[in-house]
Amino acid sequence: MVNVQPLDSEPRRGEGTQQVDHPTSQVAVFGADKPLRLDSGVDLTPFQIAYQTYGALNAARSNAVLVCHALTGDQHVANVHPVTKKSGWWETLIGPGKPIDTDRYFVICPNVVGGCMGTTGPASINPKTGNPWGLEFPVITVRDMVRAQAMLLDHLAIDTLFACVGGSMGGMQVLQWAASFPERVFAALPIACATRHSAQNIAFHEVGRQAIMADPEWRGGRYFLEGTNPRRGLAVARMGAHITYLSDAALHRKFGRKFQDRENPSFSFDADFEVESYLRHQGSSFVDRFDANSYLYLTRAMDYFDLAADAGGVLAHAFKGTQTRFCVISFTSDWLFPTSESRAVVHALNASGARVSFAEIVTDKGHDAFLLEEPEMFAIVRGFLGGAGKARGLPQNLAGKAKN
Amino acid sequence: MVNVQPLDSEPRRGEGTQQVDHPTSQVAVFGADKPLRLDSGVDLTPFQIAYQTYGALNAARSNAVLVCHALTGDQHVANVHPVTKKSGWWETLIGPGKPIDTDRYFVICPNVVGGCMGTTGPASINPKTGNPWGLEFPVITVRDMVRAQAMLLDHLAIDTLFACVGGSMGGMQVLQWAASFPERVFAALPIACATRHSAQNIAFHEVGRQAIMADPEWRGGRYFLEGTNPRRGLAVARMGAHITYLSDAALHRKFGRKFQDRENPSFSFDADFEVESYLRHQGSSFVDRFDANSYLYLTRAMDYFDLAADAGGVLAHAFKGTQTRFCVISFTSDWLFPTSESRAVVHALNASGARVSFAEIVTDKGHDAFLLEEPEMFAIVRGFLGGAGKARGLPQNLAGKAKN
Repeated sequence: MVNVQPLDSEPRRGEGTQQVDHPTSQVAVFGADKPLRLDSGVDLTPFQIAYQTYGALNAARSNAVLVCHALTGDQHVANVHPVTKKSGWWETLIGPGKPIDTDRYFVICPNVVGGCMGTTGPASINPKTGNPWGLEFPVITVRDMVRAQAMLLDHLAIDTLFACVGGSMGGMQVLQWAASFPERVFAALPIACATRHSAQNIAFHEVGRQAIMADPEWRGGRYFLEGTNPRRGLAVARMGAHITYLSDAALHRKFGRKFQDRENPSFSFDADFEVESYLRHQGSSFVDRFDANSYLYLTRAMDYFDLAADAGGVLAHAFKGTQTRFCVISFTSDWLFPTSESRAVVHALNASGARVSFAEIVTDKGHDAFLLEEPEMFAIVRGFLGGAGKARGLPQNLAGKAKN
Repeated sequence: MVNVQPLDSEPRRGEGTQQVDHPTSQVAVFGADKPLRLDSGVDLTPFQIAYQTYGALNAARSNAVLVCHALTGDQHVANVHPVTKKSGWWETLIGPGKPIDTDRYFVICPNVVGGCMGTTGPASINPKTGNPWGLEFPVITVRDMVRAQAMLLDHLAIDTLFACVGGSMGGMQVLQWAASFPERVFAALPIACATRHSAQNIAFHEVGRQAIMADPEWRGGRYFLEGTNPRRGLAVARMGAHITYLSDAALHRKFGRKFQDRENPSFSFDADFEVESYLRHQGSSFVDRFDANSYLYLTRAMDYFDLAADAGGVLAHAFKGTQTRFCVISFTSDWLFPTSESRAVVHALNASGARVSFAEIVTDKGHDAFLLEEPEMFAIVRGFLGGAGKARGLPQNLAGKAKN
């Protein structure tokens, strides 16, 4: 009963969310016989997953790499984004001859459940009402995202992933994959993430949610129906979150105390400093491509994430008996998911007897480093996948292809 | 022409700002002959300063201690707050027998210019229009705050401060005092502060300002006139700022991932986690005592603060030839004004040949440590003031008075 056509009811939504039910992507639709059983106990049905693929699946179906996106990312990891017209968010890492080499691997990147780029989320049409779900959409978890991705793999007849890769919320999904479906993940690459959200992480997210819900145009989440748009609340949420993605040093290097288009203070509330005008731009451009309710749902999913709690309070139990090989990467100046969080993963994996390598990369770029041109990260990803590929029996020696 | 009566026009303002022109404090009013010349070039006139005093000025007028408050503080440093009914914000530090001993020192704490507790600010009545100033109030700087305080000292016929003490924005004022009026400051105690706001500091403030200005009830700052109240925007600003006042470790110790009144997630957008409900409380209680426009003006003043820039780019020049003795204090877990910023002050003072001592206090309480029960800080303040008092020729040996 699975087909690849989008739901055909016509959504009523504002700008920036035209991709919700009819994305510029492949779509897998799961009908009433394939509900997504959520952690909340609710069955989400019908639902669809939008995804992009790159490269070709080999005959043994053994070269699939699942890429999991971060909070505000989406499936357009290695192609021009249909809304922003910008390059894919990991196009430096993924492509022919690149560290995640699409000449060797079949890369799949799905939009997460709760997202707004084609996978079912709060902006999607609720078939029971014909209106966007809004806050009637069930609260989802990282485990729900992963469960949905496993259904996508079934749909694609891929039994085992060669590798599962992601940063930030994407890294949480990688860890959840390794915990929920260890036999389906040959190699796992969680980057710049943690096994749980700290109180400070939750606090920052809560401020963002309150900014959205404080916007009168949010209308209890019914803004599509009421013809409003909580742009300002969402922009403030994005601005605040954006600070946490950068290090103090990176902000200083980029902006310092430089004035914007002037030499002296304006003695006004204009964006005097470059960093102010940069943040305002981050806020206002974000709202053109993201749904405010999706932001609420996905931040909530990250806050709820707690792999140890799910394993009876002992993180190592989450990975008990795992055969997956792991490569954990963190960045020295990442204060959102500091290295100590990655070390905790490594210690738990050690305690589980798992194969694990760990790299802490020295950079002043903060959490965002995982999205940036980081040659050391590129080399580690390439090397780890190469070694794992050998162990997996994937063909080696694609001479003359390496570009990074 | 200076008198101590408040301006007598009747303000039209909302809840929480009943102290604006008629504070429960002493008030010094400066008429047309005593304008406050602002850095922006504007003369603020008439204006008033609300202040509290504790202890008695000695006959030599040599035992005055000026206490400068932080962004959201006010003059009620050592008495019950007239609005919140809570203890003064430094009542643990200031009082009879306490480190800042009101049996020995005459303590003065004024509300800053731009504030909302009785000193002229954007919520005050603009005598030219009979309406609250709102955004017509001139943009002010930390130097303007200090200039106004110097006028208050003139009014009180106090030539030289025995000591000037403050934390955070209060510490900035202390540094500005030492730079602007070195001959009037015998001893200076800047705590948990910096000589300039970093790009990250500015960024956090800008998010707060945008949260306020995004609230439709802000009405371009004319909310008093329009009978609205940007409570939600101000609360979001406060919530975001509050995270920066605490360390990750303090939040973890205080809240961790504990659920509020339940054992499992609610799968909703209620305040599931204790840290969420704590932040919401911080936001909503703040708006009962603070003016949104004041928040804009004071954060702007902090962003503009740059002592080195005012001294031709060389921080040491700001303190050239100073006779003031300094005690600089920072806290290990303060990431808003990290120890490195205090060290920069100490280095500049060393380069100026100033008498300076420096203490970095080990604590996990973050920036807020300066407001908390910190025995080491108390001991340092007591000791430093005691030594300075000896040098100043203040009477020693108040036997049996020490309580902290």
